[in-house]
Parts: sequence; structure tokens; C-alpha cells
Amino acid sequence: MSHLLIIGGSDAGLSAALRAREVNPACDVTVVVADRYPNYSICGLPFWLSGEIADWRDLAHRKAEDIESQGVHLLLEHTAQAIVPTAKTATVVDGGGRSRRIPYDTLVIGTGAVPARPPIRGLEQPGVFFLRTMADGFALHDRLAVQSPTSAVVVGGGYIGLEMADALTRRGIKVTMVEYFPSVLTTLDPPLGLLVGEELSRHGVTVATGVAVEGVERRGGRLVVTGSNGFCVETDLMLVATGVRPEVRLVATAGVETGKWGAIRVNRAMETNVPDVYAAGDCVETYHRLLDQHVYLPLGSTAHKQGRVAGENGVGGRATFGGTLGTQVVKVFNLVAACTGLRDAEARQAGFDPLTVQIEAWDHKVYYPGAHKLHIRVTGDRSTGRLLGAQIVGHRAAEVSKRVDVFAVALFKRMKVEALNDVDLSYTPPLSSPWDAVQMAAQAWVEARRS
Amino acid sequence: MSHLLIIGGSDAGLSAALRAREVNPACDVTVVVADRYPNYSICGLPFWLSGEIADWRDLAHRKAEDIESQGVHLLLEHTAQAIVPTAKTATVVDGGGRSRRIPYDTLVIGTGAVPARPPIRGLEQPGVFFLRTMADGFALHDRLAVQSPTSAVVVGGGYIGLEMADALTRRGIKVTMVEYFPSVLTTLDPPLGLLVGEELSRHGVTVATGVAVEGVERRGGRLVVTGSNGFCVETDLMLVATGVRPEVRLVATAGVETGKWGAIRVNRAMETNVPDVYAAGDCVETYHRLLDQHVYLPLGSTAHKQGRVAGENGVGGRATFGGTLGTQVVKVFNLVAACTGLRDAEARQAGFDPLTVQIEAWDHKVYYPGAHKLHIRVTGDRSTGRLLGAQIVGHRAAEVSKRVDVFAVALFKRMKVEALNDVDLSYTPPLSSPWDAVQMAAQAWVEARRS
Repeated sequence: MSHLLIIGGSDAGLSAALRAREVNPACDVTVVVADRYPNYSICGLPFWLSGEIADWRDLAHRKAEDIESQGVHLLLEHTAQAIVPTAKTATVVDGGGRSRRIPYDTLVIGTGAVPARPPIRGLEQPGVFFLRTMADGFALHDRLAVQSPTSAVVVGGGYIGLEMADALTRRGIKVTMVEYFPSVLTTLDPPLGLLVGEELSRHGVTVATGVAVEGVERRGGRLVVTGSNGFCVETDLMLVATGVRPEVRLVATAGVETGKWGAIRVNRAMETNVPDVYAAGDCVETYHRLLDQHVYLPLGSTAHKQGRVAGENGVGGRATFGGTLGTQVVKVFNLVAACTGLRDAEARQAGFDPLTVQIEAWDHKVYYPGAHKLHIRVTGDRSTGRLLGAQIVGHRAAEVSKRVDVFAVALFKRMKVEALNDVDLSYTPPLSSPWDAVQMAAQAWVEARRS
Repeated sequence: MSHLLIIGGSDAGLSAALRAREVNPACDVTVVVADRYPNYSICGLPFWLSGEIADWRDLAHRKAEDIESQGVHLLLEHTAQAIVPTAKTATVVDGGGRSRRIPYDTLVIGTGAVPARPPIRGLEQPGVFFLRTMADGFALHDRLAVQSPTSAVVVGGGYIGLEMADALTRRGIKVTMVEYFPSVLTTLDPPLGLLVGEELSRHGVTVATGVAVEGVERRGGRLVVTGSNGFCVETDLMLVATGVRPEVRLVATAGVETGKWGAIRVNRAMETNVPDVYAAGDCVETYHRLLDQHVYLPLGSTAHKQGRVAGENGVGGRATFGGTLGTQVVKVFNLVAACTGLRDAEARQAGFDPLTVQIEAWDHKVYYPGAHKLHIRVTGDRSTGRLLGAQIVGHRAAEVSKRVDVFAVALFKRMKVEALNDVDLSYTPPLSSPWDAVQMAAQAWVEARRS
């Protein structure tokens, strides 16, 4: 009976564990979990902090009992200290500091990521928060409950920053969002990012773009945040959400290679360079299906897919990771912003000849009540007609997310933009149009290419 | 300058006209429209009759002026009487009975369909309605406005019947729905059709399934509807919604071939057997992409696609109709029911070795407020693993329609069920799960096939 050891108890690790048990019920699976919260949805923390979710325990994708009932052995509050591939062992330390060595036949590393610490003076101040782990969530939750802050500065207009601007506003806190670039949500093109910024403003968030935060210091009982262009705001708390970097401290001494983003190098079977050592999730480089090369793009949905592949292969399977398309979605107040594939500049850099077209289209027949305008950008290759990417911003009731998924399947299958018009999509007046908005965008792109 | 003549002013005809002008701005395009309502969304009639849409004029996809501004010449209230392919002319009669001959270089027939008249005694009674044309809609609307009926019998539990049961209930009318089969919405499998039936009951509709309506007669000021199994209901009005048949009276004398459903035979370029005569929409047989043969499946979304192809080819283009996948969706009260592809029995009949699996899955992470259960059925080919079809029923806020479209794109590209798990679909807790419900269904299918 082979032993699969998994280091990391979040999305990648638990997906690997459950998949391994599913495809090979005879295998022995152990997961080393740094905290007491295996398989928690850290993506859900903003919605607990907002008050939309009453109990943090509900954030568990699965309960520990349910995981163990699948035959997965959990080592909670254990930290891996070292991997010795030559001996096929890992050293772990429990909460009491007791160390022991665990032998493995195959190993999956799913150590995730840690918040990036931008070059801002004073980040060690009390009142400055990051949001990554359940412990980070508890710390921020306590501060909100105990000190009832009335103002907050959120640094970084990415997914977490946007969700937290929404969450803190829901709690009655006056939020200032600071973004280095000219528009928030820089995974979308500026015209769409601006719409997201407007949604923030509409809900009372002060949006400061083009500002580099330089320092934070305590003055009286409060924080003073300063930045470029004379930015200076006094606030009760500050949240730094400027991205993450892979957590790879464990691998350096084990001979596991990392790449230019510091993430673990893996192939599409999720194998590292070290025999019988797999890695998955936010600690690895991710194969990009459209670029046909690896990138660093840490996302929960990707971690699940990679974990599933690593778990299957770790017990003798032959699964292959299909690759990321860069699909992402975020809900900000009543707006949903989503994208998949390459943007114009990315496509150009990858050697394509991109053309990008933006349209507005109703999500359903405008005669039926509740129609919302969708803002859709489509990028395709001018010379071949191939679809390269799409971005949509629209009301949360306008099925933005699944419309981006329609594009995602088309990208996955290397479809041409024009071919989208041939697909028999569903139509009823309360939900769409005879040509769905996705197809109206495709038609606009085809016409723009012709002219 | 070539002249494209189009007979029929609904979805297929107008799509053909606009596309012809788009690809060849030098062409001369005339559309013969039987009534005064070119390009009206007859799919929208139930929502006007329900009171959700205030003004019937809003049902126009485009205004007549907008169509003419695109260089399309409209002959309103003109009826085509004959086509003479040898002379390349069509005879049309205007509202005053004046006849004239119009020459064409190419012709597109888009005469649509008419309601099927089931074998029920007494259908000619006043108070018995069909719903197909704007005139049908006006007649029913007048009756609702003038006589304020308090009860109605709807015969037929398909799309129109369901939408009208919803519409009449919204007006405070007590509705009895009668369906011949054991469950309504027979385009879905019975377990899902039953859910739709329950939604009707929840909103006060009496659902009588397994009943063949046999007759309707006037007694006092009311109608008495009788049927099999002792069915007998007294009511103020009756709506017959038991499907349609192609309107092909015009083509018999012109040598245009029709097939076993009485619909015009066309190839994928939308050409009939007669040179320079194209046909599109509800009057033609439709190429089914999965069956690789023609079927009769009249739908607005299909009519638009076929019209676009006919219009492009009618002015010298070389477009090909991609084929239907059988994708359909209907909203009934707060439920949406949708399907795409083949069902188990259809697949078996077509020579596949189908396996169908049904699951329940939340539309988004259940910890986030407002999660709804989706009921998903996936059909795939057991021997090859190929996806063959999918059906989903769920709350109207649960993105049912676009989730079926994700399956539709996968069907279009002949994907395997397992491959759906490799697609990078969008994830955020308020809108989906790390594995979207579509993928959970795919995984359940893959496991069922393995065991």
C-alpha cells in the first residue's frame, strides 16, 4: 500500500487527497495542515468580514470529519520543516514543537502563497492588515468587532481589495481604495476597470488611482497613510492587498526547482524536477493553454484542478492539467467583472496580431423588465480569426460569469470568433436575445476585422 | 445590381435581409411582410399578455424605419400568392387585393409556421385561442381586457403553454394546464419536467397531466372542456398551444421540395432544390449537428441563424449553417428550465450508447447568501466518453441558461464529458464554486461510467 503525503491543507492539497482516494481506494493519504482549518475557502473571507456570512465555520468546503471519512488522514497544526527526497521523508513539527519524520512514496507540495509585502514604510504598525489565512481573517474580524473603526484604507484594487472595499463599506466603514495604476482591476482593460471604479464611487468608496502608497505611521490613535501625488489620508485601519508570492521556503534545500516568479516548476502532470515529488496550487508555475508556456497565476479554481491532477498521478494515474485560460471573476457591490484569455497587449507580446472590439449589449430583450447593459470586449487574432480573449462587466443579475465561461470553452477549443455565431445558444426573452450578447460581440469583432 | 426578394417578415426573413445588406451593400433587398409588424418578437407575446410589458410596440426587434434605413425595402400587408421559378418572379397581393408580379434574382422563403390544430372537437368556438401571430396576440389581449375572464384552460405544456400559464396567473386568472404526457415540458426528461410542474402548482396552476383533450363546447356563457380520464372543466377561455407546423402553402406549385414533417428541404447553405431559391426559419427542416441529419425544430434563435446564412448566400456569399443542437430554455415563474443536445432515448435511437446521470448542485458556494440548487442531467456516450446532452432546472437567478450554453459550446466542439473538468471556468463564491456545477455534473457522469 503506497503512501501519498501532501503538504498543505488548502484547495490544492485537499483536492489531491480526495482525488487520490477516489481513483485508488487502497492508497494511504496524509495531509499536513499548518492550521486547524483544512479545506477552508479563504476566497470566502471577505464575505464573512462583510457580515454576509454569519459563521466563519461555514467557510469550510468540507468538514474535517467528512474529509477523514473519505480515508484521508489529517495532521492538523503541523508544519513541514524539511523534505529529504533521497530518503523519501518529510520532517514535520506539531503545535507543541515535537518533530518527527514521515516517510512517503509520493509527495504533493501544496504550500500555497503568502501576501506580497510592497515597499511601504511602516507595514509592521498595529492596524495594518493582510488577508490570506484564516488567522489573518480572525485578526481583522477582531479588530472590526472590538474597535469599530469608522474608516479604512485598502491598498490594491485587485480581487481581494475590491471585495474588501465592498465588505468594509457594508459594515458602515468609510473606505479609501488606493491603486497604483490608472484604473482598478488591472486584469481588465482600463475602459472596463473604470466601470468598476465607478461602481465603488457609487457606493461611497473614495477611489484614488495612480497613487503609490509610500508609508504608514501612527499619529495619535490613528494611522496616517501617505503616497505619491500628495496622497495623505488619516484612517483607523489599513488593509494591504497587493497580491501574493509563492510559499516555497520548504523546497530550496530539497533540490526542487523554482522559476522566475519564485514558484515551483512543474510539468502538466504536476511533477517537479524531483522524482515522486508533485506540486500544485498557488506555490507553482501554471501552464497557460493559450500561451503554451508557464506563468504565475494563483487562483483557487486552478488550485483545485492542479490538485486533482497531482493527486491522481501521485497514486499511479496519468492525468494532465488542461491549463489555465486566465479566467477570473469578481463581484463588486452590484457589478460583476470577468475575463478569460489574453488581452490585446498580452496577445501581441505572445506573437499574435490582436484586434480588440468593445460593445454594449443588453443581457436580455430590453422589452422584458430588468434588462441590464453588458460591456463586452473581445480580442481575436486578425490574421487567423482565432478568439484570444474576452472581458465582460455588467450587473450581477446579468449572467456575466457564465457568459465569460461560454468564451472560456470556445478558447479551450481554439475556436474562431466567427464560429461563436454558429453555436446554438439558449434563447428566451427574459434571459437573452436571439443572438446572445456573446454573439453580438463576436459579430462586431468580425465586422471590425473586415473593415 | 441584383435583387434579393424575401417572403416573410419575421426572424428568418429580416435576418436574411439585414445580413444581405451588410455583406453586399450594392444589393437590392425587398421583404414581403404579411402584416404590419415586421421583425416583431412573437416570442415576447406572453410577456405582453401577462402585463409585464406595457406596450406591444416594444416587442419590435427593430422599428420599420430602422430596417428601411438599412436599405431594406418593406412591403407591409402584402401576401405572396405564387412563386414562378422558371420566370424568377413572385406574385404578391396588397391589402386592397391588388396583385402584382415581382422579379427576383434570388429568393428567400421565410414563411414561418402556423399553429398545429389538434383533433379536438369545437376548436372554432369563440373563446378558443391560438397564439402565433401579432393578430393572435391582439385577439387574446382584447378578450382579456374586455371580458376579464377569471379562469382559463391551457392545452399543451410546452414553452408557449408554460409561459401563458404563468402570464394568465399573473393577471389573476385561475389556470388549468392540460398535458397529454405524464409531465409537462416534454423536451426535458420526466424528473425535470416534474419540477416544472411543481413550480406551476406552487403558483396556483392546476396541472392535469396524462389527459388528452377531446372537445370543447359552449354552455351558457362559458366553455366546457372535456378529455380523457374523465377530465371536465368549465372555463372562461381556452388557449391551444400544442405546437406548430410549417407554413408551406406557397411552395407546392413552385416545385420546392418538402420532407416528412411537411417542411421545406434545404441544405446547410439554406438552398432548396430549386436554383436561386433559399429558405430559412420555421418553414424548413433544420440540420441537427449531433444527429448529422435534418429534423423539424422551429425556434427563433435558429431562424435568426438560418436567415443570416440565407441572406449572405443570397447575395453571393458562401456561409454554412452550423446546425442546431436543440438548445432551448424557458422561464416559468421563478424557475428556468433549459436543455441542449440529445436525451437518452434520442441518443440511443441515433446509435449512441448513452448514459445519463442526474445530480443536484448549488449554483454558488452555499455559505454565500442566495444559493439555489440546480438539478442537472448529463448524457454522454458510454463507449467514447463523448458529451451528448445536458438539461438543467433551477431558480431564475442561478444562471441556468448560460450554464446550458457552456454545455452547448462543448457539444458544438464534440468534447468529451471528462474534458469539461479541464476547462478554466470562472469562480467567485457569490457566483459559482471552484468546480462549477457544470463540472460537478461532469465528474458525477465520469464516476458513474467507471463504476
